[in-house]
Amino acid sequence: MEHPENNEAYKGLVVNAGIEQPSSVNPYLKNRPRRKKRELSVSDYVEGIVKGDVTVLSQAVTLVESVKPEHQALAQEVIEKCLPYSGSSVRVGISGVPGAGKSTSIDVFGLHVLEEHGGKLAVLAIDPSSERSKGSILGDKTRMEKLSVHPKSFIRPSPSAGSLGGVARKTRETIVLCEAAGFDKIFVETVGVGQSETAVHSMVDFFLLIQLAGTGDELQGIKRGIMEMADGIVINKADGDNLERARLAATQFRNALHLFPAPESGWTPQVLTYSGFYNLGVKEVWDMVYKYIDFVKENGYFEYRRNEQSKYWMYETINEQLRDSFYHNPQIEAMLTGEETQVLQGNLTSFVAAKNLLDTYFAELKK
Amino acid sequence: MEHPENNEAYKGLVVNAGIEQPSSVNPYLKNRPRRKKRELSVSDYVEGIVKGDVTVLSQAVTLVESVKPEHQALAQEVIEKCLPYSGSSVRVGISGVPGAGKSTSIDVFGLHVLEEHGGKLAVLAIDPSSERSKGSILGDKTRMEKLSVHPKSFIRPSPSAGSLGGVARKTRETIVLCEAAGFDKIFVETVGVGQSETAVHSMVDFFLLIQLAGTGDELQGIKRGIMEMADGIVINKADGDNLERARLAATQFRNALHLFPAPESGWTPQVLTYSGFYNLGVKEVWDMVYKYIDFVKENGYFEYRRNEQSKYWMYETINEQLRDSFYHNPQIEAMLTGEETQVLQGNLTSFVAAKNLLDTYFAELKK
Repeated sequence: MEHPENNEAYKGLVVNAGIEQPSSVNPYLKNRPRRKKRELSVSDYVEGIVKGDVTVLSQAVTLVESVKPEHQALAQEVIEKCLPYSGSSVRVGISGVPGAGKSTSIDVFGLHVLEEHGGKLAVLAIDPSSERSKGSILGDKTRMEKLSVHPKSFIRPSPSAGSLGGVARKTRETIVLCEAAGFDKIFVETVGVGQSETAVHSMVDFFLLIQLAGTGDELQGIKRGIMEMADGIVINKADGDNLERARLAATQFRNALHLFPAPESGWTPQVLTYSGFYNLGVKEVWDMVYKYIDFVKENGYFEYRRNEQSKYWMYETINEQLRDSFYHNPQIEAMLTGEETQVLQGNLTSFVAAKNLLDTYFAELKK
Repeated sequence: MEHPENNEAYKGLVVNAGIEQPSSVNPYLKNRPRRKKRELSVSDYVEGIVKGDVTVLSQAVTLVESVKPEHQALAQEVIEKCLPYSGSSVRVGISGVPGAGKSTSIDVFGLHVLEEHGGKLAVLAIDPSSERSKGSILGDKTRMEKLSVHPKSFIRPSPSAGSLGGVARKTRETIVLCEAAGFDKIFVETVGVGQSETAVHSMVDFFLLIQLAGTGDELQGIKRGIMEMADGIVINKADGDNLERARLAATQFRNALHLFPAPESGWTPQVLTYSGFYNLGVKEVWDMVYKYIDFVKENGYFEYRRNEQSKYWMYETINEQLRDSFYHNPQIEAMLTGEETQVLQGNLTSFVAAKNLLDTYFAELKK
């Protein structure tokens, strides 16, 4: 059999080095940006989201989380167009120290509310300290075994590390998108480390604090002011040998709550026990949450709190940006440590040092 | 007897209307400012203060409290010159809800520390809500019967109403002056209304919270976070029929304190009972305070906290001034309500509204 490569016609295919051929593509088109996949327009995003398309929702959230200015501009337009479709959900913040069993609880809680109350559930998270490498909360969806494969749920890990203000902003904007996509239940998870609780508390209707029965030492893990934010405290792992200890802890928390001022909502924070692992007492926890929602919708506090939250975020953003502009001013950065040292050495009062810095800053802004 | 008025010489004293006489005073001197009393120079103030002259100290405090820019400039110079002589005192913040018996307690506490520990005591106050007409705290010195006539005490009411930041600044500066004048014990009194406690906590070494045994309802008077600031909680009116209730309240507070995180100082906040009126248990309260001071001087927290406080006031002043500059900008004042309404009506996100305002502000500053 003749091998085709021995055929002269084949050999004739060897091309001699010739002159450079002109491009077959119009060179003036070359610098146009390449589209790897079709980019969505603002109305594509909004239409997709409002239709409840989870793929489009995910892409929009990615846009919100992007640090690129062009993405941010697009994201803001999308959010604004989604605003009229948002707001009609129940937003629940869920916090607890590491080890309290938050993921297991959210898995069980989520399934319960979907079964009992229908609708769709979005689970978001705020964890400013999260780094991809260390595994952010919710980063590992497998920790919510059932919810992560549930057709009516949407789970999104915390936006990646950044300032708390930035992370909180992105989560709040994601809530708007999820609500526009028909998610009428929003969980916002956070770790029990203080500042992020304040942020979560400022974007939810009900703040649920998960605790464990402890020796007293574990209870020291609660940071300042967190207990006072709680609309409900639930003691996890109230099962088997631990049941009595959990009930005792509940009594202690109830007594402690008496020492706090009555919340503005008029609601008396409840303390319940449950077991996430054995799925005990879960119904009671969510009956409490929905009872609260009815209560505050009735007395007008629900609407009032949402309005206060919107204002809070406006003013919070302003104050954060004002501080950013000051502390990141190159002149201020150059002076700050020196002035601080003068104060610590007792050469300047705190107020004179502050005035020196402020005078410099405002003079710089005028330039 | 001849009446002198009948004498012709008398009649001759009637002066006919004549031409206007030139002034007997050099007219070029007339516009010089009149000195009602000799004004003190910076070094007069500093010398007087360092010598412990209470009259000069009082005048300097009046200068600090004055709103006149020229007084402020003078005050700042005096304070700065006094700084090297300040710092060597024990500063105790004393707070409690109205009716807890603060004035009576401070009277008894003050006499006790002066008798037991010697030295000199200055009692200052922070009450941003005070209005002269309504009678500010400490305004009526007679409420501290014994201390107000004690030769080693200096009592000064709260600077008159203004922003909390302003009132706090004046009190902090007054502490510097008092310390330079040899007052080695400083009490800063405040009412139990929240924000002002934070200010007081940020300028003292020990924060003492006065409470009453109550039905539980009274305890609701404690504002958010105040209990967590306390280095010691003392239950007043532990006498007669009330003794058992006071002891019970102390136990409740002790249990509640277990639910809070351990303070940075390493000190476990103590709960004691006493009676201000019957002068019972006062020694134990102050033994606790001095035990704390020894403890934190030993472990370095005393110095650390003072440094943190100096930094806190520098940054607090900066942040307050940045906000003032923004919110009192006429353009911002004109826009603010409109943007807020847009947010509340769901037409703008909190973040876009904030950005609109910030862009306007920074453009205004450049003008």
